[in-house]
Amino acid sequence: MITLNQAIDIIQSKVNPIKETEQVNLWDSIGRVLASDVVSDMNMPPFNKTAVDGYACRMEDASNELEVIETIPAGSVPKKTIESGQCSKIMTGAMIPQGANCVLMVEDTKEIASNRIVFTGNQPKSNICILGEDMRTGDVAILKGATLSPQHIAIMAALGCTQPVVTKKPSVAVLITGDELVEPQQKPSGGQIRNSNGHQLVGQILKANAKPNYIGIVKDTEEATYQAISSALKDNDIIILTGGVSMGDYDYVPSVMKKIGIKILFDSISIQPGKPTKFGVKDGKLIFGLPGNPVSSYMQFEILVKPAIQKMMGGALKSNMIARLPLAKTYKRNKTERLGLIPVSISNENKVIAVDFHGSAHIFALAKTDGYIMIPMGEPEIKEGELVDVRPL
Amino acid sequence: MITLNQAIDIIQSKVNPIKETEQVNLWDSIGRVLASDVVSDMNMPPFNKTAVDGYACRMEDASNELEVIETIPAGSVPKKTIESGQCSKIMTGAMIPQGANCVLMVEDTKEIASNRIVFTGNQPKSNICILGEDMRTGDVAILKGATLSPQHIAIMAALGCTQPVVTKKPSVAVLITGDELVEPQQKPSGGQIRNSNGHQLVGQILKANAKPNYIGIVKDTEEATYQAISSALKDNDIIILTGGVSMGDYDYVPSVMKKIGIKILFDSISIQPGKPTKFGVKDGKLIFGLPGNPVSSYMQFEILVKPAIQKMMGGALKSNMIARLPLAKTYKRNKTERLGLIPVSISNENKVIAVDFHGSAHIFALAKTDGYIMIPMGEPEIKEGELVDVRPL
Repeated sequence: MITLNQAIDIIQSKVNPIKETEQVNLWDSIGRVLASDVVSDMNMPPFNKTAVDGYACRMEDASNELEVIETIPAGSVPKKTIESGQCSKIMTGAMIPQGANCVLMVEDTKEIASNRIVFTGNQPKSNICILGEDMRTGDVAILKGATLSPQHIAIMAALGCTQPVVTKKPSVAVLITGDELVEPQQKPSGGQIRNSNGHQLVGQILKANAKPNYIGIVKDTEEATYQAISSALKDNDIIILTGGVSMGDYDYVPSVMKKIGIKILFDSISIQPGKPTKFGVKDGKLIFGLPGNPVSSYMQFEILVKPAIQKMMGGALKSNMIARLPLAKTYKRNKTERLGLIPVSISNENKVIAVDFHGSAHIFALAKTDGYIMIPMGEPEIKEGELVDVRPL
Repeated sequence: MITLNQAIDIIQSKVNPIKETEQVNLWDSIGRVLASDVVSDMNMPPFNKTAVDGYACRMEDASNELEVIETIPAGSVPKKTIESGQCSKIMTGAMIPQGANCVLMVEDTKEIASNRIVFTGNQPKSNICILGEDMRTGDVAILKGATLSPQHIAIMAALGCTQPVVTKKPSVAVLITGDELVEPQQKPSGGQIRNSNGHQLVGQILKANAKPNYIGIVKDTEEATYQAISSALKDNDIIILTGGVSMGDYDYVPSVMKKIGIKILFDSISIQPGKPTKFGVKDGKLIFGLPGNPVSSYMQFEILVKPAIQKMMGGALKSNMIARLPLAKTYKRNKTERLGLIPVSISNENKVIAVDFHGSAHIFALAKTDGYIMIPMGEPEIKEGELVDVRPL
């Protein structure tokens, strides 16, 4: 049995980045991964500009009475050059006139006569944003691999990049096994329950900015499992199977994976929950066999599949912020032979509460989850007040 | 001038929650706010079920040789009752047969003859999930006000709630003032620059799960400003204006807001950046006048507007996880009369790095931002290694 870190390394080493790109509108670019650098088509700012409303003048003149020779609204080009004893009234964002080297803030000035002002502040400051101080023409403004955010939209808008080139979304197939399952529209009867983790996975794939391809419930027969996996391999980059990975008579997933020629790279991980998680590759496609329990399948997607999607899209593997916070109440466990993944919520006092879930089928527990913490192999407890690393979910 | 907390309180007290609801498909529900409780239509689990693959029997029989009388696949109803000395082979998720009170894990058993097994483990455990232990028919599974996540999708799928009722998205108008601005498609000339924060705001509104209504650049005249605000008031819940809030000759926003009959509730906040931020109400609509600088407008949206959107949708005001992390390098500032909002990034060593931005127009700095920290009024510095509260952005 391998460790979680070994499992992550194996998966990451098998990811083939997607080469296909597409152009999207600015507003549709959030969450997409940039496929080519955004290069500045201009200097930013493109001219010396004022950061404040006030009077542009020569700094050495600030102690003198000044004549106002022009008013410069933002967006216009100043007509007059500032000479000694002169200034121009100027609005935030407007171009600095020739001859001026500072802007006196309007709050620090007094109009003493028509078109005549004095500076009433202590010390004049420049208040000028210098041409190109933020960015020069040809500079790389955003490196490819960035996962685009509203802040990136601002940069792309400023530089005229209205159709950013992004990586195509990987297609992620979801196959659910389990003859006890019916779809949510149906009322279960007899020994049935509704399929929940198939839809949870679709939600997780959407949130990871990939393209879900929901194939649905596959009958627990070798033939049906074979057909479904073979067919899914044709037009998906990643295949997620849930269920059928344990030791039951109808757990055909491992044998069918082998039969299809999928190279199995691991078939269990030393974690709790999620031990029977399987991973294989065929023709550059990644195949994950996740446990059928919704808590396990949720966690394994977040920890194993999501980083694979991110790398496939060419995204920098940015680790989320890890919060170091105190545990609200001592956490104990009986079995210690695996690394424990514990879903947690954060209290109003910013303390960490281990979410009470009695078994990995307990989907209601997950709704309260803000993140998870880990308890190392061999450790039976974490004490109240101890600082733990919370990874957001 | 009021404090940031006062500003937040004033805004929150003026939010009118949206009453209109709509039904959405499960997969489209992520990020939406639930408008009515999700109630369980069944017990979960709906029957006593096995958590493992193995043999269902009487616990008191575990030390005896057992006859296998039936095989119970998941999804089926057992036909036979377990008597003393008997067991049924059972698959994970299947219904426990009458008479059995435990399941011996398959890993802990040995087949000693055809249809005869013995238990080889130490101590038999129940391994049974009891009918209704997670949820009883009629229980509230998700309270209204929840912002829906993939984990909620799992719960709704399990309970047959395939069309959750959610609050309609508030419509948020974006009006940009500034005669120096041109839209991103256009190449700026003379004293012009491209409009960046209008598009950044649209991105932020989309990310906040509201509906952006981009009105665009409004000419810097009193008449145009008046027309644009009046018109936007008709069919939007929130109006965001950027620019025109300072002390320039063409900053018509405050006077026009008054003329239209908008009740101004504050016109500046003791924060840096974002001091000239204005807020008013009219006919239940919220009107925000944000500074024209992209860094300010970005931060004020996150801190003031986003929580208003969340409350308007009826969402519980869930504070994000706050990470307490050490500052990588001493941060100093000259002016200390306002609360400082400092965008930060998190290093690979999980330390906090104040993002170096030279002025609130410096949009390139924001792209590196993971969150922000605050420095209180009167404080000139935070020392290297000091623990700071990082709020995620």
